[in-house]
Amino acid sequence: MRIENIQLTPVAIPDKPLLNCKGVHQPYALRTIIELVCDDGTVGLGESYGSIKALTGLREAAANLVGLDPFHLHDLKKRVWNALPNGGGINAKTAVADHKLTDVVASAYEVACLDIQGKILGRPVVDLLGGPVRASVPFSAYLFYKFAAHIGEEPDDWGEVMTPAAMVGEARRFVDQYGFKSLKLKGGVLEPDVEIETMLHLRAAFPSHPLRIDPNGGWTVATAIHVARKLEGVLEYLEDPVLGMEAMAEVARSCNIPLATNMVVLEFDHLAEAVRRDAVKIVLSDHHYWGGLRASTHLAKLCEAFGMQVSMHSNSHLGITLAAMTHLAAATPNLNFACDTHYPWTDTDIIEGDPFRFADGNLEVSGKPGLGVSIDRRKLRKLADLYDSAGMIDRNDTLYMQQFDPTYERRVPRW
Amino acid sequence: MRIENIQLTPVAIPDKPLLNCKGVHQPYALRTIIELVCDDGTVGLGESYGSIKALTGLREAAANLVGLDPFHLHDLKKRVWNALPNGGGINAKTAVADHKLTDVVASAYEVACLDIQGKILGRPVVDLLGGPVRASVPFSAYLFYKFAAHIGEEPDDWGEVMTPAAMVGEARRFVDQYGFKSLKLKGGVLEPDVEIETMLHLRAAFPSHPLRIDPNGGWTVATAIHVARKLEGVLEYLEDPVLGMEAMAEVARSCNIPLATNMVVLEFDHLAEAVRRDAVKIVLSDHHYWGGLRASTHLAKLCEAFGMQVSMHSNSHLGITLAAMTHLAAATPNLNFACDTHYPWTDTDIIEGDPFRFADGNLEVSGKPGLGVSIDRRKLRKLADLYDSAGMIDRNDTLYMQQFDPTYERRVPRW
Repeated sequence: MRIENIQLTPVAIPDKPLLNCKGVHQPYALRTIIELVCDDGTVGLGESYGSIKALTGLREAAANLVGLDPFHLHDLKKRVWNALPNGGGINAKTAVADHKLTDVVASAYEVACLDIQGKILGRPVVDLLGGPVRASVPFSAYLFYKFAAHIGEEPDDWGEVMTPAAMVGEARRFVDQYGFKSLKLKGGVLEPDVEIETMLHLRAAFPSHPLRIDPNGGWTVATAIHVARKLEGVLEYLEDPVLGMEAMAEVARSCNIPLATNMVVLEFDHLAEAVRRDAVKIVLSDHHYWGGLRASTHLAKLCEAFGMQVSMHSNSHLGITLAAMTHLAAATPNLNFACDTHYPWTDTDIIEGDPFRFADGNLEVSGKPGLGVSIDRRKLRKLADLYDSAGMIDRNDTLYMQQFDPTYERRVPRW
Repeated sequence: MRIENIQLTPVAIPDKPLLNCKGVHQPYALRTIIELVCDDGTVGLGESYGSIKALTGLREAAANLVGLDPFHLHDLKKRVWNALPNGGGINAKTAVADHKLTDVVASAYEVACLDIQGKILGRPVVDLLGGPVRASVPFSAYLFYKFAAHIGEEPDDWGEVMTPAAMVGEARRFVDQYGFKSLKLKGGVLEPDVEIETMLHLRAAFPSHPLRIDPNGGWTVATAIHVARKLEGVLEYLEDPVLGMEAMAEVARSCNIPLATNMVVLEFDHLAEAVRRDAVKIVLSDHHYWGGLRASTHLAKLCEAFGMQVSMHSNSHLGITLAAMTHLAAATPNLNFACDTHYPWTDTDIIEGDPFRFADGNLEVSGKPGLGVSIDRRKLRKLADLYDSAGMIDRNDTLYMQQFDPTYERRVPRW
């Protein structure tokens, strides 16, 4: 069996004005929906970034995939490499974060190939990864400071969240509505002492919920150490307090909170240095750039061998991504943390039927063939139209923030 | 679908009087043939060690596997752990080398489960591992010093091989008959200077064949450094010259030949120290103890990430093992060396049809479902009867050597 046709559909998802250390989320988040159609009619689904760089990479590789056997994942990688020489521009600091475009593109298509494999076999993707080690996967509430409204719009129903007390309210809503048992705060936004205060408020309000904060490298080493010392015994881990392996190692040496990262360990080539410097204790895996689901199982085993743990990273995403994350998490024995997800902020989907619904903070692992999701073409069309009308081709949180505050500058570290 | 029945058949394989640093191969090598029978009649095949420790471990775990879904490989591992507490006796220095019995047992059954998966899917096992990166797999001639005959028997048709010149003759026969393009010598047997001489004779006779020597840790650090310096530019790698991570690291620092191992890095928990000490450049993978075929793909990726290479180890084995090795090797992108195999010494098999035949030193990767081999019950019965009549339950090369030379003592290092 062979892949005969590749459909790529960029979509725009309405998003909320969520804050991070580089600015604020724009009204839309971009994704690309992938459909691989085989000569026997089987369709494999995937979902990846929607930035123009990712979309262009996916488009450029697509022609090379016609004729691919969807079981030949090494061949897939080779075809992608051939289509995108030099890693597609390694570490080009554009919208696909700092990931090699080849990794991003191969990852996206690998998931769709595993969806095909599962469908042919009548087995869920989790069974292609060694089967489930857990029947349901715990996710974490993803807390953001936020503005009340987008530019020119009415406040959304979450309202403004810019104080510790308001953040407890946001967390309460997540916990009440979805049952999340872990809380992660996107930090690097307010004065570090206000963010410390926020974590302490969350600890008081949710005494048994594991807590994390992720300032996206927005702090100096000194600030990171200050925050870490104030939050020892409060955080289960501290995610990317600073940028760069050396800075991470320095913070690691100076505090007793395990450091986690998805910003200094982005690919297999970064692991040796991280181990050598003892810079991180937890790697946030993400199948969208680590090479796909199989590669993510390699990463987990590698972390286990080197005394590190794994957690799971998320960007704004739809249900195909969430399905893939859930299958992977279910098949990862040493995933001992609740996974990140932006899904509750997304509030829409392109899959058939009801969107995913967290219960007790968990998602059940689907037993349906493949990823277990299918596309609702009407919903897909709607978000594809939104992409066309939005006129966005890249994410730029800083530029959007400057519409709120013309004096705002992008500075990393900011604090 | 579920596993309903497990058949374990210990077999004895006629072997040649091949020498190593601990003695000489006995007249029989032992293996266990594994058949997992599913409720739909599908049968998965595996092959593992035949020592009483391995056989007992396989037997003790068997009852726990009834009801296992053959896609649930994590569950398989858990069931084996439950059957064999404490790793089945970690590092008990008995006949399963120094491997955890749980790893050995889980590995054996994992291969049989992948055979089932492939058969259900109508796909070769290589396709369950990401598909082939090569259509055929190169193997290495496995050269041994040897006695002419077993105790009380006529000389075999290889005759005595105890000199450099005779070893060139043995190598010539392997190269002529099978086309092997790499040569590996089992060393640690004769005075190191004679073994150096042997390698130099081989280099002269086969100027373009990559060469290796493996004394199984039979040398002191000083001897190893002496040999290494004499063979710089001659060997592609030096395998286990000494025992222990510290000794390996010392040799590594003192010579320019990459060190390979299957004796100091035996499991994932050994890798961090090997990396930290920079003790080895090549890990010989072996799916019989690394956890199976999927775990071996993790190992290969891990080696790539840490700047190490992978080669493949072998014990005396039959065709089920060879099939599994070939599928794994075909799906391992960074396997850049010809694989070890004892198969040409075995000269018999229990698979249906003709035994495997090396052409140009290579084996083609089977496109048949699963491992692509089936059992010839008459042949299996014959080797099972041999097991019963041989009265052996463990390998003991030293004891057998003492029948040739009553003064022989087991000493590691010997030289």
